[in-house]
Amino acid sequence: MIRAVVLLSGGMDSLVTAAYAVSECDEVCFLHFNYGQRTEKRELSCFKALVNYYQPIQAKVIDYSWLSEIGGSALTDRTIPLQEGTISSSKIPITYVPFRNATFLCSAVAWAEVIKATRIYIGAVEEDSSGYPDCREVFFQAFNKVIATGTKGEIPIAIITPVLHNSKAEIVQLGIKLQAPFELSWSCYTDNDVACGICESCILRKKAFAQAGFEDPLPYRN
Amino acid sequence: MIRAVVLLSGGMDSLVTAAYAVSECDEVCFLHFNYGQRTEKRELSCFKALVNYYQPIQAKVIDYSWLSEIGGSALTDRTIPLQEGTISSSKIPITYVPFRNATFLCSAVAWAEVIKATRIYIGAVEEDSSGYPDCREVFFQAFNKVIATGTKGEIPIAIITPVLHNSKAEIVQLGIKLQAPFELSWSCYTDNDVACGICESCILRKKAFAQAGFEDPLPYRN
Repeated sequence: MIRAVVLLSGGMDSLVTAAYAVSECDEVCFLHFNYGQRTEKRELSCFKALVNYYQPIQAKVIDYSWLSEIGGSALTDRTIPLQEGTISSSKIPITYVPFRNATFLCSAVAWAEVIKATRIYIGAVEEDSSGYPDCREVFFQAFNKVIATGTKGEIPIAIITPVLHNSKAEIVQLGIKLQAPFELSWSCYTDNDVACGICESCILRKKAFAQAGFEDPLPYRN
Repeated sequence: MIRAVVLLSGGMDSLVTAAYAVSECDEVCFLHFNYGQRTEKRELSCFKALVNYYQPIQAKVIDYSWLSEIGGSALTDRTIPLQEGTISSSKIPITYVPFRNATFLCSAVAWAEVIKATRIYIGAVEEDSSGYPDCREVFFQAFNKVIATGTKGEIPIAIITPVLHNSKAEIVQLGIKLQAPFELSWSCYTDNDVACGICESCILRKKAFAQAGFEDPLPYRN
């Protein structure tokens, strides 16, 4: 019997990861974070819609508003303007949220210990993404060692990253194969109502659907 | 110029660690967590008193009430009775809070990245403590690798554990040497007003002061 915690922001990558976890595991529990990000409202409504769609055995929303209080990211600090278009992968983008994935994973591990889940799924993408340090395989390998040394050890808990080495187009294809409801996901960094179509995240998503040869069910302003 | 983030629960070990950080660093920032623990109220008032005493350049309190929502610990779940006296170190105690130190350290790292602090002090004790997995050197070594791989890397950030290998009596002696205000600290797991004197944490503290040859300024009910 495999029970898993799935980190689900409501974005395209986490949606496909959730669909993958649902296909692989006997029981899934969905975990979402409100952290004062610009599209918190829309992401939360996507999460709720996906909970309704997939019917996990448990669903939890954690308030991490301290992440926006400390600032340091264009995703949480509205005084830092978001860039349009994609940016060079040689530089860490201004949308990097300090140590966010580590903090999210910690909550997932704590919850997994209590509910006896042995897997934690996260939809991080290393290859075709934006150069976030906490989306790299080397980071997840290190994190797995922290779990092994810092938990009770009664059950083995491992981080699973099914789309880590996929291109964004491959993620769309995988999602189509798994019948993931892309219409319930949200990728835009800037808007809660209609995707802007010009932020870094919208550009990556539009390109992914175009390369995969499928139509994105979401409308775009641009 | 050394700037540090200090995790300060208000307990004896974190107080002495803070005193040590103050003596070593040019600038300190204090960080505290409310996580629905039984003595949240008293710990917070100790933190505020210590902020007033040491005058750090910044002080922050983060709400981690999700930790008590998920439960799994006698410190946060009042339906799990606390044991009296010390327990066998071969077993992980019921006061272990799932992956708590990892989650606390993550927030400290995120904050350190933003405010450009290079050190994070935590008052974990491995040798003379209760067998918590997330108080062991092997855990902090693994965590330092997560920091190295999961942050921007613009500045090196390291976890510092000054009392990790000290006995509790040595911690008292170090605190006396550093003129740490023990009267502003709190160790009891159960009570917000008068230390019970019989919980695991009170027993360890009383024994530490007795062995160190100093009088604990706190009164005890038992």
